[in-house]
Amino acid sequence: MSIAVTSVGSTHIPLLEAELLRWVGSGDSLLELACLDALFPPGKFLRPILCMESAKAVGGTADEVLAFAAGIECLHVASLVHDDIVDQDPVRRGRASTAEQFGLAEALVAGDGLSMAGIAALLSGGPAERVLHAARITIEALRHMCQGIMRETEIRGDLTCGVPTVLNVMRAKTAALTGAACQAGAILAGASPEQNQALRQYGEQLGMAFQIRDDLLPYTAEDQTTGKTATSDIANLQPTLPVLLAYEAADETDRDRLATVFHGGIETDPVTAHRDLLAMLTRTGALTKAAQMASSCAEQAHAALAGLPDSTRLVELATSAADRQR
Amino acid sequence: MSIAVTSVGSTHIPLLEAELLRWVGSGDSLLELACLDALFPPGKFLRPILCMESAKAVGGTADEVLAFAAGIECLHVASLVHDDIVDQDPVRRGRASTAEQFGLAEALVAGDGLSMAGIAALLSGGPAERVLHAARITIEALRHMCQGIMRETEIRGDLTCGVPTVLNVMRAKTAALTGAACQAGAILAGASPEQNQALRQYGEQLGMAFQIRDDLLPYTAEDQTTGKTATSDIANLQPTLPVLLAYEAADETDRDRLATVFHGGIETDPVTAHRDLLAMLTRTGALTKAAQMASSCAEQAHAALAGLPDSTRLVELATSAADRQR
Repeated sequence: MSIAVTSVGSTHIPLLEAELLRWVGSGDSLLELACLDALFPPGKFLRPILCMESAKAVGGTADEVLAFAAGIECLHVASLVHDDIVDQDPVRRGRASTAEQFGLAEALVAGDGLSMAGIAALLSGGPAERVLHAARITIEALRHMCQGIMRETEIRGDLTCGVPTVLNVMRAKTAALTGAACQAGAILAGASPEQNQALRQYGEQLGMAFQIRDDLLPYTAEDQTTGKTATSDIANLQPTLPVLLAYEAADETDRDRLATVFHGGIETDPVTAHRDLLAMLTRTGALTKAAQMASSCAEQAHAALAGLPDSTRLVELATSAADRQR
Repeated sequence: MSIAVTSVGSTHIPLLEAELLRWVGSGDSLLELACLDALFPPGKFLRPILCMESAKAVGGTADEVLAFAAGIECLHVASLVHDDIVDQDPVRRGRASTAEQFGLAEALVAGDGLSMAGIAALLSGGPAERVLHAARITIEALRHMCQGIMRETEIRGDLTCGVPTVLNVMRAKTAALTGAACQAGAILAGASPEQNQALRQYGEQLGMAFQIRDDLLPYTAEDQTTGKTATSDIANLQPTLPVLLAYEAADETDRDRLATVFHGGIETDPVTAHRDLLAMLTRTGALTKAAQMASSCAEQAHAALAGLPDSTRLVELATSAADRQR
């Protein structure tokens, strides 16, 4: 995924980095330092690139949505900073999470500061009506994200919550914002309602493909590739899509084993627990099923692009989202 | 203060409460429940009332800024929810804080959800140019608030940080948002630049008066009046204005005693520590000095209103801010 995003967005990345610095500051205070540490080195810039490519797909320019795109990245990273507090996750992108490095209180405030810097960027320029429309859609997505994060805390440790619940959490936590990033980019570039709705659909389906793949990474990639510990889902007791698919497909004996590994794993030996889990996910066909679901979402994303004037790059992004190895 | 705000804002309060429910929801999810618990029973509604009265002072109506005012209240309460996590404060408005009641992770997400509900309300209605202008000013104030909260974590336990530093933290944490509430109300009601700047000045000075008085409450009011424990400043090792004024005025012997009480207080006996501190703040004249500073800010707030068509209620609010007992 990263390679594809980088190749698609390569010309945009230096501009995005400069724009982020413009909104977050140069590190003159502890708040700015913590925000910069969370932002840099950056991730894949998936959301801002989606925003810029969506503007271009309807005849606009990346430049006219640059500040908005940077704002979306700030808001996304703010959610990661807070998410790592919620999950007590010490690692993010292969480095110490903000909470781990600066302390919990400081990370909380840094997340708030990044959020507000992001919103300032969203509201900063362009025709007032379009900016307001795009900002409202983005804020609505962030409200869904909060619902998703809260719901996730409720299903922690619950292997019986069901696949639809986990898909809803993905929609709220990930797909809402990728959808808004695309729709907002289109609105800012003056797209028709049909076009911006199509791009929202595209962004939501791409987000689902991306997140389903993300849940698969602990079972398909090495630690050093993802920058996350493969065992962190077990440590968090977070029921992910592949685990729930396995649970659904398993017979009673395997369900009991799955529950034992899932609940007791971290107390005994996380590496062994992870290996046992991987064997069960493979045996029940859960990994294959999840990969098929990601492909299906990517196909729907692709289909939503029909009728747009120039969507070559968006097609590439959808394809790589269902195929990511990191 | 509460009595005066209530009498000034009495007709607005039911409208504000209904508007808050409209933005936060009716409690269908854990997120909504936690947000509602933080919002209700409400505080003094100082900021939304300032917003509405400022609109009226320049010839507008409270009604046209109602959603914006409710948004500002959501954002203020969100900051309290997060602040209580940062300060590890189990009590807010005489009840368990959100973190104490729902858990740290849940309170963090509730604060984020309240923030986003608040921003959705800010952006919800009125002429686009005015809404954007008012929202930008409010977001800028919230960025200052984050700077202030972070700065506060840095000076924890530091009696030598100086009075100007603590005044800067107050400006960032409190006065920026009260100033923005007034200025935004005026902008939404179509005020001239001179008028909205005057109302910003008014709101900032009122915010300073209010906050200086807030810092004095542990030494002038009973626990049950403020809903906060009088000893929480000591427990937090937070150097407040009266403590720093005493430290500045004290001789070397008293400084050592102050440092001992301040640092060791909570380990030994918080009630005794608080009594010793109160005696020192009185002896050094710090309480009198702080009260004078609050009055001076209130006078400056009052002076900023010269030239506005109808500011009777704003005058009352400024007077009561410097005189609050709870």
